[in-house]
Amino acid sequence: MHSADVTLKAQFYDLDPMEVVWHGNYARYLEQARCALLDSIGYNYPQMQESGYLWPIVDMRIKFVRPLRFAQEFVVTATIAEFENRLKIDYRIRDKASGDVLTKASTIQVAVRAATGELCLESPAALTEKMKRE
Amino acid sequence: MHSADVTLKAQFYDLDPMEVVWHGNYARYLEQARCALLDSIGYNYPQMQESGYLWPIVDMRIKFVRPLRFAQEFVVTATIAEFENRLKIDYRIRDKASGDVLTKASTIQVAVRAATGELCLESPAALTEKMKRE
Amino acid sequence: MHSADVTLKAQFYDLDPMEVVWHGNYARYLEQARCALLDSIGYNYPQMQESGYLWPIVDMRIKFVRPLRFAQEFVVTATIAEFENRLKIDYRIRDKASGDVLTKASTIQVAVRAATGELCLESPAALTEKMKRE
Amino acid sequence: MHSADVTLKAQFYDLDPMEVVWHGNYARYLEQARCALLDSIGYNYPQMQESGYLWPIVDMRIKFVRPLRFAQEFVVTATIAEFENRLKIDYRIRDKASGDVLTKASTIQVAVRAATGELCLESPAALTEKMKRE
Repeated sequence: MHSADVTLKAQFYDLDPMEVVWHGNYARYLEQARCALLDSIGYNYPQMQESGYLWPIVDMRIKFVRPLRFAQEFVVTATIAEFENRLKIDYRIRDKASGDVLTKASTIQVAVRAATGELCLESPAALTEKMKRE
Repeated sequence: MHSADVTLKAQFYDLDPMEVVWHGNYARYLEQARCALLDSIGYNYPQMQESGYLWPIVDMRIKFVRPLRFAQEFVVTATIAEFENRLKIDYRIRDKASGDVLTKASTIQVAVRAATGELCLESPAALTEKMKRE
Repeated sequence: MHSADVTLKAQFYDLDPMEVVWHGNYARYLEQARCALLDSIGYNYPQMQESGYLWPIVDMRIKFVRPLRFAQEFVVTATIAEFENRLKIDYRIRDKASGDVLTKASTIQVAVRAATGELCLESPAALTEKMKRE
Repeated sequence: MHSADVTLKAQFYDLDPMEVVWHGNYARYLEQARCALLDSIGYNYPQMQESGYLWPIVDMRIKFVRPLRFAQEFVVTATIAEFENRLKIDYRIRDKASGDVLTKASTIQVAVRAATGELCLESPAALTEKMKRE
C-alpha cells in the first residue's frame, strides 16, 4: 500500500476566531501529504507535466473529528486507495503526541490530456507503470 | 426553502499554475454564500456567539465539475438542506453568464455549547426559532 | 491621476484569534484594487501576457493603522504613483461608513520580458502608451 | 543578537500562474520564522496573551529579490532589530542550496494592553525582561 506522511504544526495564521484551524485551511495540509506521496512514487506535479497529463482534483471530502489548536503538532498520512481509472487518495490527520485521529479526508483526481483537455477514463501508463514498479 | 447567493469573480491570487482556481480556495467562496444565508435568517457568527453556541463545520464535500478561470464571474448559491439536528447547507456554483453548474458542495455544522464544549444532538432553539419565523 | 477602488467586506475566514483580519490577508485586498485599476487602463494580467511582459511585484509595504473586524465594509483605493520606469501603486483602505483611513500601502512592479526573463529598466510601450491615451 | 530560522519548501498551493510563489503568501513564511524566534525567547502568542498584551503588526515591508519555485527549499531567518519601544524584526529568505538571498523583509509590532486597547509607547517588561535574560 502506497503511503506517505508529513508532520506539521498548526500556525497562528491558520487559526480563526474560535482559536482553532479554520476548516478551509486543511486542503493545504492534505496537499502537503499528497505531494510527499506522489514524490515517493516519482509522479508529482513536474512529472505529471512531463507526461502530458494534468490531474485536477474533482472531489474532496473532509470529516473534521476534533479541532487543531495553536502549535499543535500533527501527522498527515496520505494513502493511495485507487489508481486504475482515477487517483483516489485517503488521508488521516492524527495528533502527533496521542495518535488520536483528528480528521479523515479523501480526494479524487482524474487524468486530463494537457494538449487537448480530454478526460481519460482510464489512468494513463505514466501513472500505472509507476505503481507496478513499486 | 432558505437560500441566498453571492456573485464573485475569480481573482489572480486564487489561481494555480494550471491557471484555474486552486481547489482549496473554494472553501472561502462557500463561506461567503453561507454567511449571506445565515445573515438572511439573522443567525450569522455574531448571533451564534450571543446565543452561546459555536457551530463548527464537521463535514465538507466539494465536487469540482468545471474549473474557474481568471476574472470569471460566478454565482454561489447556499441552501439550507437540514436544520433540526444539525445544519446542512448545499451549494451550487454557476457560471454567471451561462448558468452552467461548475461546482456542487455541502457542509455540515453541529451546535456546541460554548461554555462547556458539549455537542448538541438537536439544534438549539436559537437556530430552530429563526427557521420557523421565516 | 489613474485611480480605481473596490468595496469589500471582512470575511470570517480572514480573521485571526484576535478577531481582526490577519495582516497577511491584506495582500489579497490590495490585489483586488490593483486589478480594478489595471482593468481601467486596459492592462491587466491577460493584456500583460499578450504584450510579452510579466510584471512581478518586487516590493510591498503595508502600514496597518486600525484593524478590520468581522463584516466591516471597507473601500480599497489604488492609485498609480509612478509608471515610467517601474509601476508604483499606492493604496488606501478606508472604513466605508466613516471614511477613516485604516491602512496605507504601496507595491512596486517591474517589467520582465517573458521570453528572456530580462528585467526592463524602463517600462515598455505596452504600458506607457496606455497611460498617455487616458 | 536574537535570531531563529525555519526551513521550508515552496508548495504547489502557494504558486500563481507564473509558476512562482504569489507575493502575498510570504507573510505566512515570515510568521513561521517570527514564531520560532518568539518561541526561542519564550514570548510567543500564548505568553503574550498571558502577559496581558496583544502585539499587532503595524508595518510590514517585503522586498522580493528572486522568485521561489515549486519544491524549492528555503531558509527564513528572523532577527530582532529593536525591542525597547516596539518590536522590529528583520527577515532574510535564502535559497537552501545556494545561500542566495531571495527576499528581505521587516515587520514592526507594538504592544497594546488587551484589557483597554491602549497603545504602549514603551515595550512592557513582559518582553524586555525576556530579552535581558537571554
